[in-house]
Parts: sequence; structure tokens; C-alpha cells
Amino acid sequence: MENTEYMRMALELAEKGKGFVNPNPMVGAVIVKDNKIIGQGYHERYGGLHAERNALAGCREAPAGGVLYVTLEPCCHFGKTPPCTEAILQSGIEKVVIGCKDPNPMVAGKGIEQLRQQGIEVTEGVLEQECRKLNEVFFHYIQTKQPYVVMKYAMTMDGKTAAYTGKSKWITGEPARKKVHQDRLYYSAIMTGIGTVLADNPLLTCRLENGRNPVRIICDTHLRTPLDSNIVKTAGAVPAIIATACRDTGKYAPYIKAGCRILPVTEKDGHLELCELMTKLGEESIDSILLEGGGMLNWSALNSGIVNKVQAYISPKLLGGLEARTPISGKGAESPETAFCLTNSTISRLGEDILIESEVAYPCLQE
Amino acid sequence: MENTEYMRMALELAEKGKGFVNPNPMVGAVIVKDNKIIGQGYHERYGGLHAERNALAGCREAPAGGVLYVTLEPCCHFGKTPPCTEAILQSGIEKVVIGCKDPNPMVAGKGIEQLRQQGIEVTEGVLEQECRKLNEVFFHYIQTKQPYVVMKYAMTMDGKTAAYTGKSKWITGEPARKKVHQDRLYYSAIMTGIGTVLADNPLLTCRLENGRNPVRIICDTHLRTPLDSNIVKTAGAVPAIIATACRDTGKYAPYIKAGCRILPVTEKDGHLELCELMTKLGEESIDSILLEGGGMLNWSALNSGIVNKVQAYISPKLLGGLEARTPISGKGAESPETAFCLTNSTISRLGEDILIESEVAYPCLQE
Repeated sequence: MENTEYMRMALELAEKGKGFVNPNPMVGAVIVKDNKIIGQGYHERYGGLHAERNALAGCREAPAGGVLYVTLEPCCHFGKTPPCTEAILQSGIEKVVIGCKDPNPMVAGKGIEQLRQQGIEVTEGVLEQECRKLNEVFFHYIQTKQPYVVMKYAMTMDGKTAAYTGKSKWITGEPARKKVHQDRLYYSAIMTGIGTVLADNPLLTCRLENGRNPVRIICDTHLRTPLDSNIVKTAGAVPAIIATACRDTGKYAPYIKAGCRILPVTEKDGHLELCELMTKLGEESIDSILLEGGGMLNWSALNSGIVNKVQAYISPKLLGGLEARTPISGKGAESPETAFCLTNSTISRLGEDILIESEVAYPCLQE
Repeated sequence: MENTEYMRMALELAEKGKGFVNPNPMVGAVIVKDNKIIGQGYHERYGGLHAERNALAGCREAPAGGVLYVTLEPCCHFGKTPPCTEAILQSGIEKVVIGCKDPNPMVAGKGIEQLRQQGIEVTEGVLEQECRKLNEVFFHYIQTKQPYVVMKYAMTMDGKTAAYTGKSKWITGEPARKKVHQDRLYYSAIMTGIGTVLADNPLLTCRLENGRNPVRIICDTHLRTPLDSNIVKTAGAVPAIIATACRDTGKYAPYIKAGCRILPVTEKDGHLELCELMTKLGEESIDSILLEGGGMLNWSALNSGIVNKVQAYISPKLLGGLEARTPISGKGAESPETAFCLTNSTISRLGEDILIESEVAYPCLQE
């Protein structure tokens, strides 16, 4: 087998940790000796052993003289667990093949350096793009200390998220809605706006068996979230944060009593200062947010420069309606030339629906 | 070679007639003898020889004893040219392989019957779906006597056709805009609304070298088209029809002088009765229309049940804007359950843009 094939196996192992390791990266490792796989492992959950140690621990024979394939550069610092470089040196592994460097400033090439200094042969950059892509959330978070934000919306083929009557059930079909519930697993938080809470009263939980529930965040500038809303009512069981510019702390008590947390954020032009909110959430180890907002919050988020990725679910329906809602409202850009540009789009089909996923390219790349 | 391979060649030949044969179907033919192609041809232009006769005329050796592959059932009636069945019988062809039946009531299986009665072996339905798809316009027109209408629009990934300022240049990139100009070749007419004429003052010509220009139709209920608009100014060179409910015939003169035709249509709820317009256009041999309207006309067309296909060009941009235009406005459907349903969607990429093409499924298929 080729280097790339073992690395692809390691990538597949890594992905099993999706949704369980945040804010750590997903990592997979395979140990090969005499052209035989003798051990494999992945980072299974936050606080648990790293992939390299799991692979070493599961070896069916002594790893000395073997080759370790690992999707991310081994750590060389003490975190929740001791450095992996140490375990590799102790194991007698002769060669390490690495997918991509760890951008964590505490590692960032130092892991590789340490291994080489100890006489271990190191190959870098095998399936590098795939390895980076796998951990786009981690890479963003470790470098900016702000969560990676994915703006998700479902619209008809004529760009409507609801009929003019406000009815929005359902724009997309079963397979697409199921994917959204699955995706919620992978984010540390789901964020929505007060407009959506008042209009749709969502639960924003992950309605899947054994589904871990992300933290729910409501952007509620003037603290208008109803105390009998689904999110507040379930705040005892599933964490809920209300981000608000309201300084009347007397109003906080009933929310706190219901189990919500109140997060004060500065107000700017009648809206929350979203960059500040992102910094605060980043400080609380929230590395990723699925933004399921309405048009107004989506515009604020886009305009604040906090959106990293867009997931547009497009259903083969036409609603029409001058008054029907669209995914992004607010003031809007002044012309197509100053529109926000998307890049690296991928297209997939979910039943009858189409999903387009793109990265936001700030600032706009002019043609 | 297999039956299907010869038929695929015939299909490719047929497509060469695209844009030149309306309202006739595109047809291709291949003649094979002793496993050798001895002749091929296609219907090249309206009024010209049919594919079968072109293929026979070009045979490199006597076709007697050969097999004729033809994408559409040969005609058996006198039209612009004498029946093809006659030419086939005279040629001594022994076997005819047919893609699909001709839905033209004057043919509709009679061509096949006639060939069989004369002792010719006939195989039907080879690549039938492809052969039907190729002539979806013709099939629709011959059966309904109304033009096949394709609603085309370009929008951003958040469903906007222009910024809130009205600026719409450009939503899509060069390759997509070029395709639109190419596509205009294939339709008998292009239709737009008075709103678009007033806002964008389009030319609606086919800006390609040697590009044939389709008839331009403006839906203008109250006859408000400016006499100095680009369409009126060029009406002497490129046909322009103004469909209007205005009965003040005194107002017609300057338009007629400029070279426009005025087509009176009934008014209903402040708009043109589009079904009536389609019937009138169908009577004038207009078999296909590319609808490049604004939101209001698009809604009226969709709601009148005249739209057969939707071409949604989606550009990787986000405009936002509560006031920004969307592809279909008007009143709109009341809920996603009563939205107009699309089916048989295909997706293609044009540079950075995405094109989704779907058929409209009237009435809405409830889940």
C-alpha cells in the first residue's frame, strides 16, 4: 500500500471523532510494520487519549521499527494528556508520516522538529489538503480564538425561506431536514435571533437518538425572548445562552431561574456587536457555531465578517411573493460588485433538494 | 456497432438543427449497410428536406437492403415536403429503427404502420427517452398548440436578482451570460415585461456572430413601453411584438411606425391573460419562448400555468437586502405545501456559477 492509502485510512478514523472532540482537532493514526497494519486509533472524545496513543495502545505486536501515519502533527506539549512525541519516541517507531502541521502555536512544527532531532524520519504533507479540510473548524479557532460560523438556510428555487403568510413548514424534504439534525451534532453551538424565536419558537435541539445537544444561543438585543418559549422552557436540560444588550439586570432573574445564561454584549446601531460576542464565545471554548437565523441576523452576521461558510439548502419549489421572506435581508449590499463573494462551492443532492456549501471570501474579490 | 450507437449518432446529427428548424422537430438519420455507415443526414432548416431524405440523398452506395436509423418516426403526410415513408419505400431500405413516435396527430404511428404494411421491418423505442427529450419543445407545441415556455433568471445564493438599489450588473459571470446569449438562438421568441423594459431597457437580441434573433415580446398591459426604448428603436431590424390590453388604438400608431406589432390581449385582474396570449402566439408558429421577465411577470406566468421549465442561474454571491428584488414576486403561494413544484432537476456549472434546470410539475404534487 502507498503512503496515501494509509493516510486515507487515518483520515477515516479521524472523522469518527466528529462532534465529540471540540475544541480539539479530529485526528486519526495508523501504525504499519512489515507492510501490515498493526495498530490504529483516533482521538475519540475531548479529554481522552490522542490518536497516536490510542493507536500505540492497540498494537497487536511491538511497534518498534514501524511507521506511524497520523493526520495531524503530533503534539509536543502537556495539555489534558502528556505529549505524543514522547510516546512515539518511547515506542521505537522509526518513521512518522504526517498529513498536516498543527497550527496550534504551542506545536506549529515543534513536534516535527523534536521527532527529527531524536533521529526519527519524518515525511510531511501527505494528503495535506484533505487533512486541513477535515479540521477547518479547529484551524480557524486555534488561529483566531473565535468560533467557526456556518450560516445555514433553506430556501425555494426562487430564494424564499417562507411563504408571504410566514408559513415555512416545510421548505425542504425529509433527507435534508435529517441532515440538519445530524449536522447540529458537530457544532459546539447553534445560534438564532429573536426574530426566529418569536416567529417559529424553535427548540434547536438535535432530535437524533443519542444526539449530543449543542449550546443554544439567542441573539436578543432588547431581551424580548418569551419566558414560555421552547428554548427557555428546556434550558434546564439543554444549555441556552441569551446574548443581549439589555442592561436592566432586574430582567435577567426569570431567565436565570429557568436555567438560561445571560451574556451581556455591546449594542451598535440597534444590533448586538457580533464580533464581541464571537470573542466571548471563543473564550468559553465554543469553537463552532451553526447559525440558523432569519434574514436580519444573517445580514448582521455577514456584515460583521463573522461568517466562514454558507450552507444553502435549495428545494425544487417556487413560492413567489413580493412579501415572502428571503435568507438574508437587512440593508443589503449596494451592487453586485460589492456583494459578499463565496468560493470553493460544493454541490450535493439530498433527496429532491440541493445543498450548496461555500466558503465566504472576505473581503470581496473584485473581478 | 449496436442499435443504440447508431441512434446516438443520429441524435448528434439531429441536434445540429437546433434553433433552425422551429416549429419542426430536430431529426437525425443514419443509413447502415453491411455494418458500414453509407449515409447520414439531419433536418437542417425549416422548409428544408427531412433528415431521412438528406441521409438518402447523401448515400455513398445504393441504400437498397440497408437499415435506416432515425430519431423520430418518419412522416407519412404531405407538408412542406412529400412524405418520407415514400422515399424510404422507393429506396429499398429493408429495416427502419426509430427513436420515438411522432406525436403530430397527422403521423402518430401511421408512418410506422405504413412501413410495416409494405413489408419493412420496424424497431421502435431505441433511446426513446433521449429522442423525446431532444424535442420536448416540439412535443409540447404539437400537442398543445401553445409555445413551450422556459422561465430564466439569475440570482445570488440568497435569492436576489438585484441589489436594493436596483443594480443588477452583473449577478452572474461571463460564461453564464454567454450561455444565455447562445440559448436565445434556440427559442422562437423572448418575452419580458414592461417592468423590466422600464428598469433595464434591454435589447434582448442574440449578441453572437451570425446569431439569429428571436422575436421579442413585451407584456405591457397599459401600453407604457417608451418609444425610445431599445426594443422599439430596433424593431425595424429585429421583430418586436407588444402584447397589450390597451384598447386605445390611437396609441398604436407610433409603435407600428417604429416597426412593432401590437397584439391585443384581454386584461384580467390588472394583468394580461397570458393563456390567451400563448394561444395567439402558438397560432403564429411561435413554438418556444424564453421568458426573461421580472418578478411580477414571472409570478403571473407561473400562476397562469404557462411555464414548462425553469432555468435558475445561481451565482456564488450574497447581496442581502430586505428591499432587494427576487426572481418571482407577485402575491405568492400561501404555504410551502401549495408552492409550485419542480421536477427532473439537472445541475451544471458555468464558471463560478451554478445552473439548475427543472420542469414545472402542474398541479403541485403533494407529498
